[in-house]
Amino acid sequence: VSGDDEPIHDFDRATAVTLRHADDGGLAVHDVVVDPGWTIGDKPHGGYLLATVARAAAEAANAVEGPDHPHVLSATAAYVGPPALGPAEVHSEVLRRGQGMSHVRARLNQEGAAKVEATFTLGRLETDARPWWGGEAAPAIAAGANGAGGVRRSSAPGPSGMPMPIMDRVEMVIDPATAGFAAGRPAGVGELRARLRFVGDRAPDPLSLLYAVDSLPPATFDLAGTTGWVPTLSLTAYLRALPAPGPLVVRQRARLVESGTVDESCDVWDTRGRLVAQATQLAGIHTS
Amino acid sequence: VSGDDEPIHDFDRATAVTLRHADDGGLAVHDVVVDPGWTIGDKPHGGYLLATVARAAAEAANAVEGPDHPHVLSATAAYVGPPALGPAEVHSEVLRRGQGMSHVRARLNQEGAAKVEATFTLGRLETDARPWWGGEAAPAIAAGANGAGGVRRSSAPGPSGMPMPIMDRVEMVIDPATAGFAAGRPAGVGELRARLRFVGDRAPDPLSLLYAVDSLPPATFDLAGTTGWVPTLSLTAYLRALPAPGPLVVRQRARLVESGTVDESCDVWDTRGRLVAQATQLAGIHTS
Repeated sequence: VSGDDEPIHDFDRATAVTLRHADDGGLAVHDVVVDPGWTIGDKPHGGYLLATVARAAAEAANAVEGPDHPHVLSATAAYVGPPALGPAEVHSEVLRRGQGMSHVRARLNQEGAAKVEATFTLGRLETDARPWWGGEAAPAIAAGANGAGGVRRSSAPGPSGMPMPIMDRVEMVIDPATAGFAAGRPAGVGELRARLRFVGDRAPDPLSLLYAVDSLPPATFDLAGTTGWVPTLSLTAYLRALPAPGPLVVRQRARLVESGTVDESCDVWDTRGRLVAQATQLAGIHTS
Repeated sequence: VSGDDEPIHDFDRATAVTLRHADDGGLAVHDVVVDPGWTIGDKPHGGYLLATVARAAAEAANAVEGPDHPHVLSATAAYVGPPALGPAEVHSEVLRRGQGMSHVRARLNQEGAAKVEATFTLGRLETDARPWWGGEAAPAIAAGANGAGGVRRSSAPGPSGMPMPIMDRVEMVIDPATAGFAAGRPAGVGELRARLRFVGDRAPDPLSLLYAVDSLPPATFDLAGTTGWVPTLSLTAYLRALPAPGPLVVRQRARLVESGTVDESCDVWDTRGRLVAQATQLAGIHTS
């Protein structure tokens, strides 16, 4: 980083991809490093991994002739197994370059084994776009934009018993109305809400929304009788608009816990109150 | 089909897969035929295609040594482009065979081009499973279990202007409270509800739920000012329980229409009122 540049934010450093080779047919391989800082316990964060894979996929798509499609519109990820910290590869395959959108699949590989299998629809989100219909309003949350009145998540071990280095890199302030879990008093509603920003105030962009949609603790922390790690099996995210600068409001809700799995939906609003990202995930869960 | 067997239902015939070859490493190729009957206009139905790909993926996974994982637990599909009617191939790749679950990716290919790119988590849904928490109750709908009081969808062209051969194969009775679109009077709520069963009363199973989660017309038909084809870009489905025999209740809801896309969520309940499948999709849309 030269002296004239803004310092690179840790999220951009940790999600960096380096092109190793690409061919004319839309295949590309990028080197990445699974970062020790964007972790929960010793496991890399799923949203962080998705953002990393998305960077490689978008670079692969835009290396192929066609219209520029800089933004992820939709992303799906199958979490096959947690990658180890350290070097990994992302293998991308451009499936289609359309006029308005491109489709890419990409895989994070380690020692030849698939760890994250992802697909992306890429396109362009415009700064002057407006909702045509719908778009739920942001929920009122008690934590102020500066975090006042909320419960800040720290990197110390939470209910899962694991330290969370990632929480030194983001500022997540839980709405006190949904923060009972942190004191052993879950509300039983299956919903968590928070304000979220990166430490150092890097403005949100589509890439960081892929982290945001998986950023909150499992909504099942708000239910009594669930314990431990809630590993994401499959995550799907839709990015609907370019986020305005400032902290995001994130809401995570559980709907059904049955047979060792829970589905959770996530919604993300920007400071204008615009619904900028939506996601759903199916995760494994242990119940007592 | 021998004389002693139940006649094969058209859904099972149309989603049939024939193994061409498989190797020890978890790669398999199946031949399939994209059926002219499971179509809207001249385009194959997305949920039908997903069920077809899922059959191949499950066969590929269970051909590799390991526990039996007969059921799809989660599925994602990127609809890269509509396949032509007729022969196609499904290329499957088993990513992981775990104790409780397997991960498989699979692609429906035609003439070397990817048409549907899918991933699956496979496992086993148990007949005696019960919800542990949550699971929204089925909505009351005015159409009776025998279709009385509802508006049956026919294969004649609907608001999209396209004939729907698939509607000769399923019996879809729209709740009259959400059927205004069929008479040019959408309610403006962005929600459709229906009872659904296969013609001939084939009982629902996990495979047919992959059709059910994409079976309703676009929920945007309930909004004034949207027209034409609403092509699915990305669809994600979670199967949560084995469905009981009898018609399903299906609800499709739109949440945000912006910048040429709409997200829709789908929920499916069985005759016990159990939430058996959930899905979300991002689709392209034209607004006036």
